[in-house]
Amino acid sequence: MTGWTPTNPAYRERLLAELQRGGFTHLLGTTIVSLEPGAAVLRIDRREALLQHHGYFHGAVTGAIGDNACGIAAGTLVAADRYPITSEYKINILRPASGDALIARSEVVKHGGSLIVCRADVMTISGDVERLCATMLATLVEVPAAAATAA
Amino acid sequence: MTGWTPTNPAYRERLLAELQRGGFTHLLGTTIVSLEPGAAVLRIDRREALLQHHGYFHGAVTGAIGDNACGIAAGTLVAADRYPITSEYKINILRPASGDALIARSEVVKHGGSLIVCRADVMTISGDVERLCATMLATLVEVPAAAATAA
Amino acid sequence: MTGWTPTNPAYRERLLAELQRGGFTHLLGTTIVSLEPGAAVLRIDRREALLQHHGYFHGAVTGAIGDNACGIAAGTLVAADRYPITSEYKINILRPASGDALIARSEVVKHGGSLIVCRADVMTISGDVERLCATMLATLVEVPAAAATAA
Amino acid sequence: MTGWTPTNPAYRERLLAELQRGGFTHLLGTTIVSLEPGAAVLRIDRREALLQHHGYFHGAVTGAIGDNACGIAAGTLVAADRYPITSEYKINILRPASGDALIARSEVVKHGGSLIVCRADVMTISGDVERLCATMLATLVEVPAAAATAA
Repeated sequence: MTGWTPTNPAYRERLLAELQRGGFTHLLGTTIVSLEPGAAVLRIDRREALLQHHGYFHGAVTGAIGDNACGIAAGTLVAADRYPITSEYKINILRPASGDALIARSEVVKHGGSLIVCRADVMTISGDVERLCATMLATLVEVPAAAATAA
Repeated sequence: MTGWTPTNPAYRERLLAELQRGGFTHLLGTTIVSLEPGAAVLRIDRREALLQHHGYFHGAVTGAIGDNACGIAAGTLVAADRYPITSEYKINILRPASGDALIARSEVVKHGGSLIVCRADVMTISGDVERLCATMLATLVEVPAAAATAA
Repeated sequence: MTGWTPTNPAYRERLLAELQRGGFTHLLGTTIVSLEPGAAVLRIDRREALLQHHGYFHGAVTGAIGDNACGIAAGTLVAADRYPITSEYKINILRPASGDALIARSEVVKHGGSLIVCRADVMTISGDVERLCATMLATLVEVPAAAATAA
Repeated sequence: MTGWTPTNPAYRERLLAELQRGGFTHLLGTTIVSLEPGAAVLRIDRREALLQHHGYFHGAVTGAIGDNACGIAAGTLVAADRYPITSEYKINILRPASGDALIARSEVVKHGGSLIVCRADVMTISGDVERLCATMLATLVEVPAAAATAA
């Protein structure tokens, strides 16, 4: 229970469909672990192509899963004809991301007017052990879905 | 002329070698356009796999090239036995990244003690036209190169 | 010449009036050095009450002048019935602020829809010497002026 | 219980003494509500001089209490001959700060090497009601106390 009420009851289908449309999120191998109104958990499994030259997940992958988790948490709350796009985020990288997978846990902090503020923690998973490796604070802005689609 | 003096005269060879070691930066197809003490220009060409589902470069690619450009600008200034790692950054996404390529121009703002503060602007290129699509402010911390290499 | 066109030709009178209405900005002793469409320069002179316990300007004063400079740069561009409020900012403190005065130079980076992205550099002045002591990146959101006024 | 162990057992006396040394924190009327290893709660009561021209706490006061709370949380963990200074922070202003007082609750997220990453939430108090009005993510760097004291 997150306390948030979605305005689009079909938010789950919409977000799953978007994630499967391929492109970069597909390249990263991002999957949705869970989804609630105003909250999301994403996962990316370790693959050689996602690492930097010291064998950790590349910082950009950590940034990507955090940003994506914020976008999806925001996406659970917007109307069907609206779309949240990232306006800005800040991320603190706390430890090298050395595990078997990355997990991002995001939540909406504020949804008011057209701005949505989200937080995400990114964890590394090594066997059973979860460790915080990054934390993010992001601002998204709702736009008409048509505007987001148009090139 | 940037006003910065590198402590490692072989910084160029080192950074080019690191970029070619594969992994995520390779996946993105990042190339170095130019390199000076305290400054770098990187480029990523448009490829289907780097786009989000509306056909723009994915925000994470924009973040990645900016972060990478900051890391490389910092890398031109550190000693041969030191390595700069990203501690944190903030990025503002200003426009959808719709062009043929992304260019990131980075510069070191402050190098003092073990902290290096960098700025990067990310531009989209469409034919001859460059347009600012994101701007980033980052803090990197120097660590012994051995510490960065060890898992 | 900044390339920006103000929508409210009386922006200067409006911003000077707001600055003189007292409150916190008055407490800081903030003055406007110059004002152009999309850009501002503010100044705060050194006073005992503005210092931290090591004798530098308190970091919050540095943050305040930067934030204020961004708000005023944004304020030069909005319509007479709109008001820009700070949604978020990030500031990097680069050096102790030890001079006779602080100067903040701000500029609008992007003004689109209801969001205004601004940058500000904060300098310390010691005699004739200016030195960069902080840099800020901020997002403001335009709201109806009535909404900003209402408690 | 916060899980953090202070290296300076007299951290409380040190931080209370610093807060009473006057200057800007004194001007704001900041008081310490509670203090634990790696965590702090600060308070600033409403006064005309701290408001902006619409009658809310000025954004800079919100920034100041959040930044201060992060600095004090970090200060509970450093050695007696070390001093944490703010390297950078990001703050999201979520709502106008319209109450009787501001409360900032901070905690250390990571303390490693010389960097300390902290989070703070700033709440407005109106009667019995607390409301989140801002959230901050900050990076501090430990320096020798002598360096922090020297001009």
